[in-house]
Order: sequence, then structure tokens, then C-alpha cells
Amino acid sequence: MKMLINVAENVVADALRGMAAAHPELNVDVENRVILRRDAPVAGKVGLVSGGGSGHEPLHGGFVGPGMLSAACPGEVFTSPVPDQMVRAAAAVDSGAGVLFIVKNYTGDVLNFDMAAELAEDEGVRIAKVLVNDDVAVTDSLYTAGRRGTGATLFVEKIAGAAAEEGRPLEQVEAIARQVNESSRSFGVALSACSTPAKGSPTFDLPPGELELGIGIHGEPGRERRPMMTSGEIADFAVDAVLDDLNPTGPVLALVNGMGATPLLELYGFNAEVQRVLGERRVPVARTLVGNYVTSLDMAGASVTLCQVDEELLRLWDAPVSTAGLRWGM
Amino acid sequence: MKMLINVAENVVADALRGMAAAHPELNVDVENRVILRRDAPVAGKVGLVSGGGSGHEPLHGGFVGPGMLSAACPGEVFTSPVPDQMVRAAAAVDSGAGVLFIVKNYTGDVLNFDMAAELAEDEGVRIAKVLVNDDVAVTDSLYTAGRRGTGATLFVEKIAGAAAEEGRPLEQVEAIARQVNESSRSFGVALSACSTPAKGSPTFDLPPGELELGIGIHGEPGRERRPMMTSGEIADFAVDAVLDDLNPTGPVLALVNGMGATPLLELYGFNAEVQRVLGERRVPVARTLVGNYVTSLDMAGASVTLCQVDEELLRLWDAPVSTAGLRWGM
Repeated sequence: MKMLINVAENVVADALRGMAAAHPELNVDVENRVILRRDAPVAGKVGLVSGGGSGHEPLHGGFVGPGMLSAACPGEVFTSPVPDQMVRAAAAVDSGAGVLFIVKNYTGDVLNFDMAAELAEDEGVRIAKVLVNDDVAVTDSLYTAGRRGTGATLFVEKIAGAAAEEGRPLEQVEAIARQVNESSRSFGVALSACSTPAKGSPTFDLPPGELELGIGIHGEPGRERRPMMTSGEIADFAVDAVLDDLNPTGPVLALVNGMGATPLLELYGFNAEVQRVLGERRVPVARTLVGNYVTSLDMAGASVTLCQVDEELLRLWDAPVSTAGLRWGM
Repeated sequence: MKMLINVAENVVADALRGMAAAHPELNVDVENRVILRRDAPVAGKVGLVSGGGSGHEPLHGGFVGPGMLSAACPGEVFTSPVPDQMVRAAAAVDSGAGVLFIVKNYTGDVLNFDMAAELAEDEGVRIAKVLVNDDVAVTDSLYTAGRRGTGATLFVEKIAGAAAEEGRPLEQVEAIARQVNESSRSFGVALSACSTPAKGSPTFDLPPGELELGIGIHGEPGRERRPMMTSGEIADFAVDAVLDDLNPTGPVLALVNGMGATPLLELYGFNAEVQRVLGERRVPVARTLVGNYVTSLDMAGASVTLCQVDEELLRLWDAPVSTAGLRWGM
């Protein structure tokens, strides 16, 4: 696979330099690999720190800014960041109100954020943690005990970010983040594998004419492989997989997310089918977001995440946000 | 190529249905293929109408909203919309202040917008037109007499949109749009071909290990084909091609644009190299935008567009905009 890179070893550092140049409103510490709100710490405000392997952009660095994350820690491609990054981020964003770690459920991330929490607390920063584990495709996976964390991360970061922006205390921000995760489920499909810079070739083999149902965001295997399906058939399968597990009793937020290489034209068409299925299942949709938000490098495919919301979560979702990857109302 | 679609014939209609569902703030006329600001016509405001073949999303439909386009007319994939769409859009957005057509320089678009202008004027709508032709890669091409219109379209739509939002008269909005086009140049590279739904396979053959320099946004041939280059080498080539033609004497806006399938991680890394070259050439950069804005379906690659700005253009660039694809300050 041809890539728009210099050398594989430097892709993350190069990207951070490019991000710093494009976003003067951010404080990008290239050397230590931490992306910060420029105004951090914000007095009285709970800090929100997330992070994970690179290759899922705009997640997480593209979600740093007023109304969402205080800081993000990018690891190497598809590799957890190290505790030092998280401790540094926590110290930089803590105003005394404490810090919430938002952790996608992958073994490396969980271990490193756990270690970072201990170290940060030793330094006097109060830490809470929420684990995101929304992917219903598989129970355990190559890289996780339990469900993987995928698209719901965006909902958790946005809604908890809005709560923190309002000055809520750490316990409340944590509880809201937990509620969002527990109210969210995702299911993804891959039409092609992705290629990491280090490997330089597809991470798995997906024959022409087949798709993988229930794929993870690193190309982890899903539930099954089938002959290629139409957009409508995929929507039926993915939405039903989510609804079977979520059983929503009220309106939902819908994220129709591209894995990276699927054109927006196709994603919008897929959204039409997702909305059709939700209509048939009598699930009211409060808001819909379509685009490439939680990606898997150059993988073609899409995921559907639904989050059941009450009035309060919906209000927090609608609250202003100003980040590189998600922005409205300010 | 596998695609997330139902049938090739319906991709544009399906996408419009999906867009309508995701964006209640827009008025998407699926049957007549016009995407409108919901509040159009805005009293006293010049209307801005653009359009072109589908497959370049978010351009143009994703740029409809306050501060940018009043309406967009999507054609079939890589095919000009028809005059009826443009006439309908012009009539819908005209408040009496007239309408500016923003036309990318492709033969079909030029002919159809010309015909639409005559028809709309017959119906009493005052029409001005601006042709976008920023791509320095080739003088003529498969689909154009003269240079192709590519990334600068975003600058023209944003800056002229801000001028219209301020209530400037048609002649001034047209003059500003023309100034932006004349101050802008682009150059793109492809690492892979794109596949149209109708063809179902890559539109051209690009061997492993080679890239195409000076590619158009439909996979039209560029200047030359070379063995694969590093991100830094590509930035040197592309930025120099733009600067050789533009010769900026002041600060520029920089758009580092993905062609669709290149991960954001790579685009940010490429931006670091673009900024390096601009620094070496002593070109001050006022603002930088990195992302997938003027795409070519699932093509891998990137383009660089520079627009020299004075204080007034920069102020209009910074003005609030609220569209699906570009949003800040509101």
C-alpha cells in the first residue's frame, strides 16, 4: 500500500507537527505527545483526558477543545499511549476539580490508564475513570476482555465534555459519562482491510466480493464473513444487532460513522438505509451525525452507534462544542 | 471494488435522502436534486448557487448554510447537474438581490450553468457568474478548456458567502469571488485511482509503486507519473508547482485537502511538510485547513490549494459559517 508518509517510524510525530500548524487554538506538545486545550487548566472545571492508539483520527486529538476533551494522548498507530503521557495530560488540565479518564476497552489502554491514574493520584490529582465498551459484535476479542470501545467514545466525550463545561463536579461528570456508555451500542462492517504504516500491507485478508460483519476498529475479526451485501441489507444487519442489545425505550442519537476510506456519498446513502430500519423498528431518532469520526486508517466500511438519550443527555449533546473534528454552537 | 450502496443508479438519490435525514437544518429537495438553506430566500441577501458532479462531497451540498452557499445542485457522479436544477435553485434563493453562480471549470458545468443563467434571467432573476479554474497541473484537460476548478472552490464559496451574508450587492460579491479565484492555485497527487459506482472498478490504472502528479478530481491524468515519493518530496513538488504560478507577495490561506481515502493521520503529516516548504519559501501562512473537503470518491492522495489574502479576504474567511462540512463562529 502506498502511503502519504515519510517513514513509518515518524507518522505520529509528523501528524502532530501538522496538527500543531493547522490548529493554533490547540497546544500540541509534539515531544511528549499530548494535545491540550490552550486554555487548560480551566478554573473550577473537571478535566477530561482520553487517548489511545493513533489511526482513528479525528478521535481523540480532533475532539480536544471547549465543550469536549481537555487533552488527548495519542499512542503509536493502533498501540496504547504510555502512562507518562496520561499523567502529564492530567497534571496539565487539572484545576483542582479532578480529571476524568475516558478509556476505550482495549487491554493495553486499560492497563496504562490504570497505572496513570495511580501515578496522577500520587501527584495529588483526583482521577475518575470510565470504560467505553459499546461494540456488540463480539464478547471478547483479540485485544480485549469484554466488548471493544468504538463509536460511543464520541458520544461519551461530547456529552461528558458538555457537563464538565457547565462546571459539574467530577462525580457527576463521571456518572454522566457512564450513563452515556451504558446507553450506547455499536456495530461495524468492513469492505476492505486497513494497512498500518509499520506493516505496509493490509492487516487482514478480505477477498473480493466479501465483507466482514462486526469488524473492530483495528481490523480485528468480527462475527462473520459473507458475500457482499447491499447498503440496505447491511443497515438491516447492523441496526438490528445494535437494537437487539440496546432495546431502546426512547429517542436515540445516531452516529453513522465511516471507517476512513468510504466516500461521504456512500455514507449518506447508508444513513438513508439506517434511518429506514430505525423507522421500521419504531425507534425515534433525535439527532444524526454522518461522517468519518472514529476511523480505522484507510479501511472501507462503516459503523452504526446508537445512544438512547433523555432530555438532559440531549441538551448536553446539543451544547456548544469547538474542536477540530466536531464543532457547533460557538 | 466493493461499495456501500444499493444500486449504482440510485447513489445520488440515496445520498440526498440520507443527507435530508441527518440535516433537518437544510431543505433537501430529493426529487429535484437541490439542497437549500432552510431560510432561503434571505431578504436583501445575494444568493449563492453552486453545483457539479457528485462524488466530491462535502463539496457542494456540505457547504450550504449561513455564511456559505444558499443552494447546491448535485449531478450524477462526476457528471454536471442539468440547467433545470440551477434555475430552480436560483428562483428559490433569490430575494431580489440577484444570484451568483459559482462554476467549476468543466465543459459540462460551464455549458449548463450558462444555459441556466439565461433561463433564470428570462424569469427575472439577476445572475452573475464566476468560473473557478485554480488547478495549475495542466493547461487543458480531458474535461476542460483551460484549467480545472478544484480546491479553490471552497475558498470562493466561503469568502463570497461571507460577503453575501453581510448584505453586499451582487456586483461586489461577484468581484470578491473573482478575486479569490484569481488569488488561488491548486495542485493534487493521486496514490490510487477512484472507482465510480457506474463503472465499479478503478477509473484508471496506477501501478503499485507509482503516483500520479497533477491529478484532477475525477481521475483525469496529471502532469506525470513517477515512482512513489515521500510525503516531503510530494510537498516540495506540489507547493512549488503552486508557488511558481501564484507568486504570492503576502500571506496565504492553505488548504491541505484529502482526495477521500487518505487517512487524516497522513494528511496532518503531509501538512507538516507543506508548512515546511512554505516556510523555506518564506510564504507566511495566515490560516490552514486540513481534511477531506474536495474529494474524488475513494481516491487516495491529497491536494494543496493556496489563496493569497489581504486583510479583507482574511476577515471574510474568519467570518462565522454554519454548514455540514465547514463550521465555525456560530
